[in-house]
Amino acid sequence: MIIKKFGERVKKLRLQKNMSQEKFALQISMDRTYLASVESGKRNISLENISKIANGFGITLEELFKGI
Amino acid sequence: MIIKKFGERVKKLRLQKNMSQEKFALQISMDRTYLASVESGKRNISLENISKIANGFGITLEELFKGI
Repeated sequence: MIIKKFGERVKKLRLQKNMSQEKFALQISMDRTYLASVESGKRNISLENISKIANGFGITLEELFKGI
Repeated sequence: MIIKKFGERVKKLRLQKNMSQEKFALQISMDRTYLASVESGKRNISLENISKIANGFGITLEELFKGI
C-alpha cells in the first residue's frame, strides 16, 4: 500500500540524516504528530506536504519516490 | 508551484498517450472534473490519487515525478 511504503521511505531518509522526528518536523514546519502519522503509513498525505518533505531532505520528488 | 507543475506533467503524459481526460479518468476510476482540476494545477492531490494516476500511465511514481 502506497502510503505505507511512502512512510517507510520518509523514515529511512530521516534516520539516514540522524534526525529525530521532532527536529525534522520543526525544520520543515510540520506538526510532529502529523509527521509521525505519515511515517507510520496512516496518512494520505497531500502533494504540497510531500514537497515540503523532499525540500527538507534537499532532494527532488523523483529521488524521494525512488524505489517506491 | 508544485501542484501546477504536477498538473502539467500529468497533462503531458496523458496527451502522449493520445487519451482524452474523459477516457483517462474513466480508466483510473477518477471523476473527470477532478482530473481536470489536477491538470490545471488547482488541486492539492493526495498520494493515493497520485498513485492511481501513475498506475493508469503504467509508470512508477519516480517516473511520474521526473523533471518536476
